[in-house]
Amino acid sequence: MKAGIKASGKPDVALAVCEGGAAAAAMFTSNQMVAAPVTVGRRHLALTGGRVSAVLVNAGNANCATGLPGIEACRKSCVAVADAFGCVFDEIFPSSTGIIGVPLPVEKLIAAVPEAKAALGDHAKDAEAFATAILTTDTKLKVVQESLVIDGKTVNLFGCAKGAGMIGPQLVPHATMLVYIFTDLAACSEHLAAMLGAAVKTSFNCISIDGDMSTNDTVLLLASGKSNVAAEGAALPAFEAALQRTCDSLAHQIVDDGEGVTHVVTLEISGVASDDDALAIARTIASSPLCKTAWSSADPNWGRLLAAAGRAGVAFDPAQALITIGGLPVFEYGMRAATFDEAATHAAMSARAYTITMHLGRGAGQARFITCDLTHEYVSINADYST
Amino acid sequence: MKAGIKASGKPDVALAVCEGGAAAAAMFTSNQMVAAPVTVGRRHLALTGGRVSAVLVNAGNANCATGLPGIEACRKSCVAVADAFGCVFDEIFPSSTGIIGVPLPVEKLIAAVPEAKAALGDHAKDAEAFATAILTTDTKLKVVQESLVIDGKTVNLFGCAKGAGMIGPQLVPHATMLVYIFTDLAACSEHLAAMLGAAVKTSFNCISIDGDMSTNDTVLLLASGKSNVAAEGAALPAFEAALQRTCDSLAHQIVDDGEGVTHVVTLEISGVASDDDALAIARTIASSPLCKTAWSSADPNWGRLLAAAGRAGVAFDPAQALITIGGLPVFEYGMRAATFDEAATHAAMSARAYTITMHLGRGAGQARFITCDLTHEYVSINADYST
Repeated sequence: MKAGIKASGKPDVALAVCEGGAAAAAMFTSNQMVAAPVTVGRRHLALTGGRVSAVLVNAGNANCATGLPGIEACRKSCVAVADAFGCVFDEIFPSSTGIIGVPLPVEKLIAAVPEAKAALGDHAKDAEAFATAILTTDTKLKVVQESLVIDGKTVNLFGCAKGAGMIGPQLVPHATMLVYIFTDLAACSEHLAAMLGAAVKTSFNCISIDGDMSTNDTVLLLASGKSNVAAEGAALPAFEAALQRTCDSLAHQIVDDGEGVTHVVTLEISGVASDDDALAIARTIASSPLCKTAWSSADPNWGRLLAAAGRAGVAFDPAQALITIGGLPVFEYGMRAATFDEAATHAAMSARAYTITMHLGRGAGQARFITCDLTHEYVSINADYST
Repeated sequence: MKAGIKASGKPDVALAVCEGGAAAAAMFTSNQMVAAPVTVGRRHLALTGGRVSAVLVNAGNANCATGLPGIEACRKSCVAVADAFGCVFDEIFPSSTGIIGVPLPVEKLIAAVPEAKAALGDHAKDAEAFATAILTTDTKLKVVQESLVIDGKTVNLFGCAKGAGMIGPQLVPHATMLVYIFTDLAACSEHLAAMLGAAVKTSFNCISIDGDMSTNDTVLLLASGKSNVAAEGAALPAFEAALQRTCDSLAHQIVDDGEGVTHVVTLEISGVASDDDALAIARTIASSPLCKTAWSSADPNWGRLLAAAGRAGVAFDPAQALITIGGLPVFEYGMRAATFDEAATHAAMSARAYTITMHLGRGAGQARFITCDLTHEYVSINADYST
């Protein structure tokens, strides 16, 4: 759907409707500054006890830092959808993504609702249209589809995501990354929230592109119950595993399509006191301009990894540390590894995706984190302002 | 002096000698990973109670992550200088800057000592030669010279600095930013340490280029006493003020010559609970790729400032916030300022240097922080690896 919110004229409105409503759980950004739709969506889920009839998403405008008029605009768009479908106002879940601080042209959004309603369908192309309209600087669709057969019944799961910049989510229960996961499992909101929380912890909360946490990040899980498969017994581990795969895949797709990304780097940190310590080191490396620019040219300048780790606020003894890049040792016993091979390391780093491990010698804390390089193209995308 | 440590063949060894020794105070990086000369320099100052006869600096190699052989190489270079000048080994203060993780070619450094000794002098050109040899990716000399007349006597102060990347210092008493300040004031090491700590707090500890704290950052203050002016009475505030001006100037010069910098941005944060809270917000904005790329094109996308402030871990109410850029209000009452003028703001941001203020509405905490934009040139400088 095109409402004319994006200057490019590309699709910018997505609408998903669940007849009779669905059980819902959502997680949002932990930024102090949150967009109007985050405030409204949070309130709607609280008022309905986790029930959603329709999801309305616009791209091209984040409706953030827009004050009370932004809240009003968001609410008006929800009213328009509720009117169009004869459903409860509070059961409309709004999302926005795009520029911050510009008033949302809500009249354009409302004017697009009838056409969006007419275009609804339950075929693969309709799901794709939804996943397309939520994109901004993304270059690819990010979707996952799975069907599980449990006790002879089929449970379906469809997830889609957007996000390529301002990606450094740290979602809390109650992130400009938007993720929608739809299933026909039967489960209550509280149970969905618990399952979503567990799946998000090691997926969306362990990625970054530029480390800039957004004001709008949102992950929404909707369960219609139409499979007649309840979230219990053997269905439970099967669904939880599928949900984790869905979140892992979408998280990886987001980094892989990050603004200007040419290398996807997985950081595996271990041997520190706690998982949080390991995550702090991973986040610091993942947001280090010197590490990220070195990755962009496959430069085996591993000293930058150590310098970044050393400012993460985590105690470790460099003499105990072992660092590998693409499986090749680069640092051990407090100095360059005896077997360090610059050409081989450069070759390993020339791959589109590779892993860096950093074992810091003490403690059982560990983390796995997916991030990317910093390129000329990233600067171009985010500095393209001209008057 | 050229020892051949830099592949470019540019000057890479600097030597300063104080006949009879000088009282000394130094501050070093708080990175967990420190270079060999930081370890050795810290130990020498402790052993001598803050006494330095000579300063030996090499550029082109950081002698960091080089293990015990790195320590040995550093000590050997100190022995060579002590032998050349007949002074106490522990009174040699070593510094290194350059690539991390590559063994220091100490034999080249030692071979250069006789020539460095022969080239010593006390003219302006000699000070300039020292300031030149410590540079790496810097494009300019960073020097300050002041003479104070106190009670008819003259106190001289000369400071020089290097650093253009891996600049996000947080110095602690006991960073690849190197700063040397020489004075002929008479003061003991403890007093120098106190004065240096106060001056560093609001100068070098309130700047960043890329936010990547180095393993080698060092600020050294040497006082020979040859002015016969003691650090007491009226001389004290006069000298402290001059020292602060020196540190402020060198800190500004470092950012102004930062890798690829086209805009120097001063952040003034106020209205939060504590100075530390204000500093946390300033540091988060200063290390936000989205803020820094917007600055590079003078893009008045102030929403990125708010998004970064909102992830700094500091509580504030956006409705109480007031943000100005170049003196022009951009955000107030929780939304775009009524008087927001995009063209005027773009024009203000087109200046080489300007100030962004963010008043967050409650509390007396404040900070002033100097940082810069992130440009294509920064990426080029730090991703120039090719095999």
